Amino acid sequence: VAEHRPRGFRVHTAAARVIDDDRDDVTVIVSEAPAVASAVFTRSRFVGPSVTVSREAVADHRARGVVVVARNANVATGKEGLANALEVRRLAAAAVGVDEHELLVASTGVIGVQYQMDSLRTVLGALTAAADTDFDAAARAIMTTDTAPKIHSARCGDATVIGIAKGVGMLEPDMATLLTFFCTDAEIAPDDLDAAFRRVMATTFNAVSIDTDTSTSDTAAVFANGLAGPVDLAEFEAALHETALRLVRAIARDGEGATKLIEVHVRGARDDAQAKRVGKTVVNSPLVKTAVHGSDPNWGRVAMAIGKCQEEHDIDQERVHIAFGDIAVYPHAPDAEAVERLVAHLDGATVEIHIDLGIADGAFTVYGCDLTEGYVRLNSEYTT
Amino acid sequence: VAEHRPRGFRVHTAAARVIDDDRDDVTVIVSEAPAVASAVFTRSRFVGPSVTVSREAVADHRARGVVVVARNANVATGKEGLANALEVRRLAAAAVGVDEHELLVASTGVIGVQYQMDSLRTVLGALTAAADTDFDAAARAIMTTDTAPKIHSARCGDATVIGIAKGVGMLEPDMATLLTFFCTDAEIAPDDLDAAFRRVMATTFNAVSIDTDTSTSDTAAVFANGLAGPVDLAEFEAALHETALRLVRAIARDGEGATKLIEVHVRGARDDAQAKRVGKTVVNSPLVKTAVHGSDPNWGRVAMAIGKCQEEHDIDQERVHIAFGDIAVYPHAPDAEAVERLVAHLDGATVEIHIDLGIADGAFTVYGCDLTEGYVRLNSEYTT
Repeated sequence: VAEHRPRGFRVHTAAARVIDDDRDDVTVIVSEAPAVASAVFTRSRFVGPSVTVSREAVADHRARGVVVVARNANVATGKEGLANALEVRRLAAAAVGVDEHELLVASTGVIGVQYQMDSLRTVLGALTAAADTDFDAAARAIMTTDTAPKIHSARCGDATVIGIAKGVGMLEPDMATLLTFFCTDAEIAPDDLDAAFRRVMATTFNAVSIDTDTSTSDTAAVFANGLAGPVDLAEFEAALHETALRLVRAIARDGEGATKLIEVHVRGARDDAQAKRVGKTVVNSPLVKTAVHGSDPNWGRVAMAIGKCQEEHDIDQERVHIAFGDIAVYPHAPDAEAVERLVAHLDGATVEIHIDLGIADGAFTVYGCDLTEGYVRLNSEYTT
Repeated sequence: VAEHRPRGFRVHTAAARVIDDDRDDVTVIVSEAPAVASAVFTRSRFVGPSVTVSREAVADHRARGVVVVARNANVATGKEGLANALEVRRLAAAAVGVDEHELLVASTGVIGVQYQMDSLRTVLGALTAAADTDFDAAARAIMTTDTAPKIHSARCGDATVIGIAKGVGMLEPDMATLLTFFCTDAEIAPDDLDAAFRRVMATTFNAVSIDTDTSTSDTAAVFANGLAGPVDLAEFEAALHETALRLVRAIARDGEGATKLIEVHVRGARDDAQAKRVGKTVVNSPLVKTAVHGSDPNWGRVAMAIGKCQEEHDIDQERVHIAFGDIAVYPHAPDAEAVERLVAHLDGATVEIHIDLGIADGAFTVYGCDLTEGYVRLNSEYTT
């Protein structure tokens, strides 16, 4: 749900039949005015040319937008893949009337397969510069195995921040996420934008994990064209954070095969970084995820997962406290009545796990989802 | 299959109804003669009292055997749990006529639940010192969710090495595995035994991963009573390695819900440690595991998983080679005929993934299994 639109951004979507159906799978988002930008990318050692090209494009913190091809990652495709990425960007830039160096390229989907360039050339050649602000269409067109589009907007003063995101599997962002793009008409200096964006990413998109698998294509970018004039910096960061957090919750809830959102709130850690490591270990544990899926009050698996953090020598099981929602389970095991309430909490759409390590003041919250037979089914059958 | 028996070891099994059925779930293995021993344990920060007590018992490298309680881990059970572990050991030692400090204690199963001590007292009190060498019964009695017992023996000169193991989930050993015990009548000095055992564990039980979850209870121990006299050290280590590797393959193949054994052979790494990290990352990737499950020739997921090793800055995708069995898939994508052979390989009971990083001479092989709907089903329903 996004009620507001930033001024001066155009959206184009088209169907290039990247795989054999009719849905839109090519998206161009572009600012009519010059814009400042910031972006973070996957840290994979097997990045695709889209990431390489986009890293270079955003290096000067000036970019107007992005062209996205869904359902083919264009990764592990060699020199031909790089040439194709550059041609896709050149064609998109020509169609919407900007310099090619002002566009990022993003692509997710199957790895190791070349783009069908004939079809992409036809579709990109037919794009017109006509104004359209249908960000909902863009949120749909960038999807791969997502079951629902992810879009949210927030206001700060006279300006708007809008964000879209996709990604439900192969998803443990580290420096970034799969694909998420933010557009704003706030006027903001490149350094301020970059600093705010990185802080927001750290506690939102870098705090979500569906299945521990890091994509080769993760890209998160923000574009600010200034058409709404100056904004209060703190208010802007709050709007960006709210938008990003809502997208993250939507992504975790829509994790491949997922039926529940899991939030792991860690506090009492040595520092925030330790709290994040512990939270990630718990939210990624297949045994915690399956127990949540089955509403199994098997809280001992959370203790096991904390125990996996073998390098955290200051974690002492005698000082740890564990709760689900408001139901404490460790060190005092729940009685029958509490187990009943625990099962009821596990049956809900959002499961909250609270861990207090009892060391110091570090805290962090991570987001994930349950592991289901649907995840296995979907990923056993993906390309065949 | 274990054709040979070491001299001088007795085996006791009994049904203590740890959970509500009649199968044997208490095991005592003990040498009639004094024995030297070595053991490695989980590095979890949430270890149970069994591990604490056993660590102390084996510190002087003298121990005759172990008492095992299956289907209750006795973890996160506080002071009462520790007192129970000590009482179980005392009762077992008295029944078989050894000093309590000569016995290890091991326990796996549900976390956070106290032993039913009445039943354990009755069963352990009724144990007799009568000779029995039924290691097959022990291999069955230590099982939890295993679907088959794991046992193997090998000869070295006049001596025998026999090993049993259990564990099919919550299993990514680091310093050790779930439960595995080796008995031998070889005569071997404590230091030699310890060194050989640690080397063998490093390339066998520390090279297997079912689901990345490290147990709170992992224990691997070897007991040598010397009744067969001296042996050639290299021959002994080879026999121990063969026994351990066969148990590891059986464990991976019997991973919870698993239908296939996955072996990831990494070579061309900077060193063996890097090869191991890369192999573990690949064998633990849910997307690789599900693709193998579905015989999906989606080899790009192996490239993705290698790419996840973000800290390995010397991995260059231009120098990497990937193959399944003898079918090369990267950097030259397989043609239609090769894809057909790839699917046939994936349909087999053992899937071999070969990765050459093209850096130097480091090599390591890791063992795992596919991820199936059966894994999710089993672990969603464990305690309820």
